[in-house]
Amino acid sequence: MYKVKVFVTLRESVLDPQGTAVKSSLHRMSYNEVDDVRIGKYLELTIEKTEQDLDARVREMCEKLLVNTVIEDYRYEVEEGVPQ
Amino acid sequence: MYKVKVFVTLRESVLDPQGTAVKSSLHRMSYNEVDDVRIGKYLELTIEKTEQDLDARVREMCEKLLVNTVIEDYRYEVEEGVPQ
Repeated sequence: MYKVKVFVTLRESVLDPQGTAVKSSLHRMSYNEVDDVRIGKYLELTIEKTEQDLDARVREMCEKLLVNTVIEDYRYEVEEGVPQ
Repeated sequence: MYKVKVFVTLRESVLDPQGTAVKSSLHRMSYNEVDDVRIGKYLELTIEKTEQDLDARVREMCEKLLVNTVIEDYRYEVEEGVPQ
């Protein structure tokens, strides 16, 4: 089994109203040292070992379903040998 | 400046209906090797250097605002020296 951790973030050029709202809340709570907040998604996929190329399959899943590549970027990390 | 990356995940014991829906979609798209999907949040905070203890401040922000510790776990990583 593999554990694949996918990080999805809004592209730099895309406004993040949710992040802006969180930043304002933090400032109201006196965390004035916070300069910027960006909010994204974090997905953990548990994937069985198969004959197929894991990287190619994960990229396909991301680009077809998990990530909106028009406004989002993604990266992922693979951990091997997660016990079943 | 510091860049703090916060990963928020649902606790193991908490059902993740969004993850279950994504898993079903992946299966319908023939990605049958996907055994489990868990969905969480990923936050990037840009924080100015201050006299205060960064770790203590980040933990406070997480526990007071960013994370619902009843149903969620979190961990974070600090990257130093992000250019202003």
